[in-house]
Amino acid sequence: YKLHSGRSRNEQIATDLRLYLRAGCDEISEELSALISAVLDRSEQVGQAAMPAYTHLQRAEPVLVAHWLLGHVEMFFRDLDRIGDCRKRANVCPLGSGAVTGSTLPLDRDLMARELGFSAPTTNSIDATSDRDFVIEFVNALSLLALHLSRWAEEMLLFSTQEYGFVHLPESYSTGSSAMPQKMNGDLLELVRGKAGRIIGDATALLITTKGLPLAYNKDLQETQEPLFHAAEALLSSLPLVSGWTKAVEFDLERMQKAAETGYMNAFAAATYLTRKGVPFRIAHEQVGKAVRLALEKSCELQDLSLADLRAIDSHFDAEFFNFVKLENVLAIHDVPGGTAPVRVREAIAAARSKIAPACEDAHAHA
Amino acid sequence: YKLHSGRSRNEQIATDLRLYLRAGCDEISEELSALISAVLDRSEQVGQAAMPAYTHLQRAEPVLVAHWLLGHVEMFFRDLDRIGDCRKRANVCPLGSGAVTGSTLPLDRDLMARELGFSAPTTNSIDATSDRDFVIEFVNALSLLALHLSRWAEEMLLFSTQEYGFVHLPESYSTGSSAMPQKMNGDLLELVRGKAGRIIGDATALLITTKGLPLAYNKDLQETQEPLFHAAEALLSSLPLVSGWTKAVEFDLERMQKAAETGYMNAFAAATYLTRKGVPFRIAHEQVGKAVRLALEKSCELQDLSLADLRAIDSHFDAEFFNFVKLENVLAIHDVPGGTAPVRVREAIAAARSKIAPACEDAHAHA
Amino acid sequence: YKLHSGRSRNEQIATDLRLYLRAGCDEISEELSALISAVLDRSEQVGQAAMPAYTHLQRAEPVLVAHWLLGHVEMFFRDLDRIGDCRKRANVCPLGSGAVTGSTLPLDRDLMARELGFSAPTTNSIDATSDRDFVIEFVNALSLLALHLSRWAEEMLLFSTQEYGFVHLPESYSTGSSAMPQKMNGDLLELVRGKAGRIIGDATALLITTKGLPLAYNKDLQETQEPLFHAAEALLSSLPLVSGWTKAVEFDLERMQKAAETGYMNAFAAATYLTRKGVPFRIAHEQVGKAVRLALEKSCELQDLSLADLRAIDSHFDAEFFNFVKLENVLAIHDVPGGTAPVRVREAIAAARSKIAPACEDAHAHA
Amino acid sequence: YKLHSGRSRNEQIATDLRLYLRAGCDEISEELSALISAVLDRSEQVGQAAMPAYTHLQRAEPVLVAHWLLGHVEMFFRDLDRIGDCRKRANVCPLGSGAVTGSTLPLDRDLMARELGFSAPTTNSIDATSDRDFVIEFVNALSLLALHLSRWAEEMLLFSTQEYGFVHLPESYSTGSSAMPQKMNGDLLELVRGKAGRIIGDATALLITTKGLPLAYNKDLQETQEPLFHAAEALLSSLPLVSGWTKAVEFDLERMQKAAETGYMNAFAAATYLTRKGVPFRIAHEQVGKAVRLALEKSCELQDLSLADLRAIDSHFDAEFFNFVKLENVLAIHDVPGGTAPVRVREAIAAARSKIAPACEDAHAHA
Repeated sequence: YKLHSGRSRNEQIATDLRLYLRAGCDEISEELSALISAVLDRSEQVGQAAMPAYTHLQRAEPVLVAHWLLGHVEMFFRDLDRIGDCRKRANVCPLGSGAVTGSTLPLDRDLMARELGFSAPTTNSIDATSDRDFVIEFVNALSLLALHLSRWAEEMLLFSTQEYGFVHLPESYSTGSSAMPQKMNGDLLELVRGKAGRIIGDATALLITTKGLPLAYNKDLQETQEPLFHAAEALLSSLPLVSGWTKAVEFDLERMQKAAETGYMNAFAAATYLTRKGVPFRIAHEQVGKAVRLALEKSCELQDLSLADLRAIDSHFDAEFFNFVKLENVLAIHDVPGGTAPVRVREAIAAARSKIAPACEDAHAHA
Repeated sequence: YKLHSGRSRNEQIATDLRLYLRAGCDEISEELSALISAVLDRSEQVGQAAMPAYTHLQRAEPVLVAHWLLGHVEMFFRDLDRIGDCRKRANVCPLGSGAVTGSTLPLDRDLMARELGFSAPTTNSIDATSDRDFVIEFVNALSLLALHLSRWAEEMLLFSTQEYGFVHLPESYSTGSSAMPQKMNGDLLELVRGKAGRIIGDATALLITTKGLPLAYNKDLQETQEPLFHAAEALLSSLPLVSGWTKAVEFDLERMQKAAETGYMNAFAAATYLTRKGVPFRIAHEQVGKAVRLALEKSCELQDLSLADLRAIDSHFDAEFFNFVKLENVLAIHDVPGGTAPVRVREAIAAARSKIAPACEDAHAHA
Repeated sequence: YKLHSGRSRNEQIATDLRLYLRAGCDEISEELSALISAVLDRSEQVGQAAMPAYTHLQRAEPVLVAHWLLGHVEMFFRDLDRIGDCRKRANVCPLGSGAVTGSTLPLDRDLMARELGFSAPTTNSIDATSDRDFVIEFVNALSLLALHLSRWAEEMLLFSTQEYGFVHLPESYSTGSSAMPQKMNGDLLELVRGKAGRIIGDATALLITTKGLPLAYNKDLQETQEPLFHAAEALLSSLPLVSGWTKAVEFDLERMQKAAETGYMNAFAAATYLTRKGVPFRIAHEQVGKAVRLALEKSCELQDLSLADLRAIDSHFDAEFFNFVKLENVLAIHDVPGGTAPVRVREAIAAARSKIAPACEDAHAHA
Repeated sequence: YKLHSGRSRNEQIATDLRLYLRAGCDEISEELSALISAVLDRSEQVGQAAMPAYTHLQRAEPVLVAHWLLGHVEMFFRDLDRIGDCRKRANVCPLGSGAVTGSTLPLDRDLMARELGFSAPTTNSIDATSDRDFVIEFVNALSLLALHLSRWAEEMLLFSTQEYGFVHLPESYSTGSSAMPQKMNGDLLELVRGKAGRIIGDATALLITTKGLPLAYNKDLQETQEPLFHAAEALLSSLPLVSGWTKAVEFDLERMQKAAETGYMNAFAAATYLTRKGVPFRIAHEQVGKAVRLALEKSCELQDLSLADLRAIDSHFDAEFFNFVKLENVLAIHDVPGGTAPVRVREAIAAARSKIAPACEDAHAHA
């Protein structure tokens, strides 16, 4: 759009920033949708494999690997949604606001806005030239996305240690050690986790710079540009790498499955078993606690105890118990929407697929 | 809603936090709508009074006092909108997610969600018990609201100095000095400005605490509660006070108007005059610059120069010039949507009124 | 110092960062010392001129212009001191720490440290390769320096408004407006104020990135470099400009002096007068409050009231009062170390001069 | 010290805050010294036991458990030092500064300062009443301490997972699960890690609130109190708990030792072996890399390869090799100050002991 001479720098900078940011919303949404697709592909490939779900980093209950991956997908979907809301609010046109009180040219602001793809002109010239809310809201949204990537990276790094051994780092996304010939380091993931600190720092810087600023334009606002550019570029360069990593990573499903079968992770299911026999939950929790302690002494799992041992603890135990606490059944009884029962997980993958499809088209439409 | 025994703390805490936050969205939206109404009332009361608009804290162009107040209204409207989007994303129900893998009870999660006023159940049990995005997004939104209040406070404090003298601090919202008998301090506004720092600090704390946290629930998440409560309570207690202050404050319209008439703030209008005579803007800017320097030497305003003096600078000046640079006309020529021409400002007040009305109803409907 | 092959990247990066930071400490200290000198020069040039001291942005008591400038000098002295402490802690040498467990070469670490100008080798190889405390402490110290510059900038911008008129922005450090021919904007100061937000953001980013990181080296630590470089470079480029600005700025001492003589800023001195006559301070405060209100009604200053009027309020007033509340005396009675009595201010300038001299030499010695 | 009537709130608040902070420095230093002592006790108790040292969370080289613990001790020593520097700078007395320009009473400020245990009076009344540097510097120092505790917590939580199994959480500092009878969660450590986010948020809030504030006292400064109190109290309550935890925790030295002997962590030592035979490091690194790959194929460790296999890779290998890569020797060859050779670690413990002793006395002297 041709800019007239006599137009103020203030309205032009505000317009340029919005155009940059709008494109950033679209590009990041597209890359993020691609990452979601990659995670969904992996969720299907891992089939019915199980792994431990952790709380407090301690093994809690068995869970489908796919269900774990879908947990991350949910976070990314909220990011897409949030970036979409930010785009909607940012997509208004300051042109015609002049330096501060509005243009003195007889401009058709609606037309100008429309031609640049904005949904409307801004509604107050003082606000339009001194507002950087859209930058702050966008970088805030990117902070959350970066935070989600940091949680993803943290888990993948943890699971790729020799101690966990659930994940084999793809060589093409890792580097060797200059000193130690046996090592393979997950540099990409560590950088992604580190970047989250930087992007949160960008968001903080923007808020500080703008806090308490009198209206309208002050040169301090120039300092809002670099944090915006840094945060957007950092994510635009990380996301495709994380997608590539996700496609290349190898899950050691055998080791995950084995971990899911040990460590008394069917203890909650065992308590559920007793409650279905009419034992109040509090009591059932206690009785199973005793059974766990007995198994610990005998260095075995719950299902390896004899029925006699179990009945000595609580007379409600009977032979069905051994089937009830098998991994397959333990997974199956978490049969609520959002639960890890295989049938629910299949539904969840399908639902996610159908949500990502229009998001992709949307991103294309904006692009 | 009666909670069954055997339900996990993890899903309950997540549900309680969402209920707290949802109520916080509604209460803050209601208080903010009340503040917007109070500012709109003042915008109508100040009528056609003018004041200087500032950029870089330097007097730039004259503007209607109402137009300046509407600049702040725009910020508050974006806050309302943003809090609404946050509420929408937060309003889903984690009940039934268990400790991490989903409940083993045959629950109707849709029904539970509906009964608690949620729009839907959450879609993944791991995410549902470890997600605090809604807290971060809410406090991020509150950071922006606090930032807007800090800009409002900064301007009001500035305008209430003896040097500006545009605003007389209402005694009921100010305090005297323990040492100096002549003083009246704007404590409320300073506290509001200071609180912005605290609330931004809350947002930062939340992001730091959650960054890089492995799934699912970790006790670190307990530390997300106090910053949420602090930020929400700080704004809930500040907003009614700021509304009260706004109703009670006295604008010295005479002094503002006088300031609007001096300081060469019609220089841009003078350049506009020349461009309408066919002078290219760059040249017009230069010629008016010369006229300003001449007026400075003569210690007078532009309109006090003689036509002869003006024509010696540029032959396009003629007698109409003196009318063109009168305050009334200078305001009127900023005649675009969002500009300070009185007719545009009246439209803007009406438009804001119609926007706030449904927002108020909305808040009531949620309450 | 020649680095052997087989040396780990981890110890080398840590060493390089410390060398960079140590140089940064020295260069910034030197530039800051130069700024202090420039402010001290101005403190001497302004002689006995007075201005209002503000609390809550309201005129409180008269103060020497030099005393106000010395207030900023104190902040800068603390920065020098803090940077010196940081340098001391940072100046230890990680070479010989290997990748994590110490070198296997028979190195003389003391010698290596000495040759590179470090005070000692680091004491634990795991800590030495994963520690970035020195970076965080340095950028924290720079945050405070940037904050002090932001307070300096804020006051100078305020005082350069048409409303205050205490400071005339030097043209060589200001820019004109693209739209408004009459304007001169203090861009440098606004950028300095804005940079403070960025540098605080850098400090925050560093803390976030390092929080909760397991030992020893992780690639996240690479993200500590850019914030360090940005913060150091931002200050290294700003400080000489602020020094230049300080030398070039013009104080309107006449206008400052006039402001110091009005606005009832001798009210506290008037209360002091009464207390010296034996009136308890609380009562004296009240009585002078009444006198101020009477003067306000009469649109005059306290010293313009008649003795009769004053005695009607409190019988302790007598003829000496009029001398006591003269500006000269009001300044003189603040006669404690650190107070604004001219004799104390002269002492303070001399003391600051003698403190800066060795600091300058020190900086040279390090360079 | 009896405060006179007529003294300003501004100087009193500043004095009170400094007294609070000085006490906080002393109490936190004392608690931190106690923690260091506890860690040193454990360092002695673990004797010559080894464990893996990690970089990038991957096993790198074997290290003494004591050496790992000493890495944390170094961080805590820097905290002690930093808090000491902060105390030194904070310990000056604002009394006599009045509201802003200095007291009008003939006070002996040196005497007052001395009686309250301050090292000197403050040197400028404007600065003295508007300065909160000491609060910011203190909370910045606490941020680093909190960050160190978060790194300690992170490692301990990691090492207490079933996958690592190096650390058995002490029951008295852990909690069970409301849902899962088999679980024991490290709540204390997670809270400590979470608190770091809060305390960094406090530091950020303080910087934001003070940035760009004109001199002298403004009510915004009231908002600096709560973050100070929160950060200090949070650490004062955490430190004794962490000390208690440290005394109670059980290290599984057998499992640590076993982990130290596997995973090719002697690969760097193997390369060192070749370099001592005259092979350039780059080549040695490559050759050992080949040996590792061969061992991986054979599912054995380096020392389990036959000499023939090794010589097929590089003819410099001979029979001594097998002794050279034994754990005992691998540890011993890191024989530099700060390295993990047992003799060096013993020296390091002794050095730390002698440093903590006077620190303890110091804390007592201040108390």
